[in-house]
Amino acid sequence: MRKISDNTIRRLSLYLQFLEQSNMLTVSSRDLAWLGGTTSAQVRRDLSAFGSFGRRGLGYPVVELTRRIRGILGLERPYRVILVGAGKIGSALVEYSGFRSRGFTIVGIYDNDPKKIGANWNGLRVLDIRRLERDLNEEPSDIGIVVTSADAAQEVTNALLRGGIKAILNFAPVQLSVPEGVVVRNVNMAHELESLTYSLANLPATPPT
Amino acid sequence: MRKISDNTIRRLSLYLQFLEQSNMLTVSSRDLAWLGGTTSAQVRRDLSAFGSFGRRGLGYPVVELTRRIRGILGLERPYRVILVGAGKIGSALVEYSGFRSRGFTIVGIYDNDPKKIGANWNGLRVLDIRRLERDLNEEPSDIGIVVTSADAAQEVTNALLRGGIKAILNFAPVQLSVPEGVVVRNVNMAHELESLTYSLANLPATPPT
Repeated sequence: MRKISDNTIRRLSLYLQFLEQSNMLTVSSRDLAWLGGTTSAQVRRDLSAFGSFGRRGLGYPVVELTRRIRGILGLERPYRVILVGAGKIGSALVEYSGFRSRGFTIVGIYDNDPKKIGANWNGLRVLDIRRLERDLNEEPSDIGIVVTSADAAQEVTNALLRGGIKAILNFAPVQLSVPEGVVVRNVNMAHELESLTYSLANLPATPPT
Repeated sequence: MRKISDNTIRRLSLYLQFLEQSNMLTVSSRDLAWLGGTTSAQVRRDLSAFGSFGRRGLGYPVVELTRRIRGILGLERPYRVILVGAGKIGSALVEYSGFRSRGFTIVGIYDNDPKKIGANWNGLRVLDIRRLERDLNEEPSDIGIVVTSADAAQEVTNALLRGGIKAILNFAPVQLSVPEGVVVRNVNMAHELESLTYSLANLPATPPT
């Protein structure tokens, strides 16, 4: 499969969010454009890259488009997610309903703080970080979410990798070293704000792309 | 100023994070490449787009590069930030040290829940959402962070806009309508995970761009 850009993935994800809430039979490229913050032409390009569907004047069939986008994004199967770091962000993520509806299930929460270990978080018990690698080897998971301090993040990542994790969502403000074949996605709220300040400093704003 | 891509802004932001923690006099494009998850050639392209600095074989002077990147990202001045929604994510954001170090100060927190209004959050009092527009008109702010439910997000956004806010960081899973000249940045954790599942479904992974 050809590589698609991160912006395309972001738009596909937005289209999907809408499609899964929709009770219509078809959807137009104009509707999708509005949701994705883009143009009808861009929507048609995004979707035509994955084969021909949708008919001029009739729009895209919702059920088929949903299935196709889920397929492109790798969402035909559920994913087991491990969370490391039982702090505020971790807590928000555990309660985030958007995860489960897309097929992401947080199956374990780990921390190194004796005061947190053993606590009940939304039906899950916070486990000792020292068990992480062994637990993963007994029962593999797919994705690790790292919500630790910058200091601890690489060590935690190493344990996740030894446990077979191949995808990491990193909230720690540090660049993680991982071998080839492992994917890392960094989330940094300061970066999000900086993309706003860049735009503020360079108004008039250009349309989002 | 010519428009730069979102990926470039993200890399500049990563370079800046490193530069601000650095105690070296110069930095090489190779160091920056590693931090930005990219190549030396890409670093040189990113930086040369903003004028000529850095000398072949000597690297980039840290102080000047820091100043220039802050300038490009619009960070020469502090920003006042208003947070709407006193929930788990909001709480994590208020305590997030990365904001203040970049010049973002959360100056007000608003909610519509009587049980939350009046509570003390990191030295700030949670205020009644009904005061938001009036407060903003008395004392303007720059950026609004919307961490409400999808249902409430547009109404809150409208109040922020009437109060003169021109930039919004939106955590609600909904596309906000804003007039031209207002910038919105959407944060959606499910999207972040989907970019990972896309990569997992399409391994061998390509290098990050």
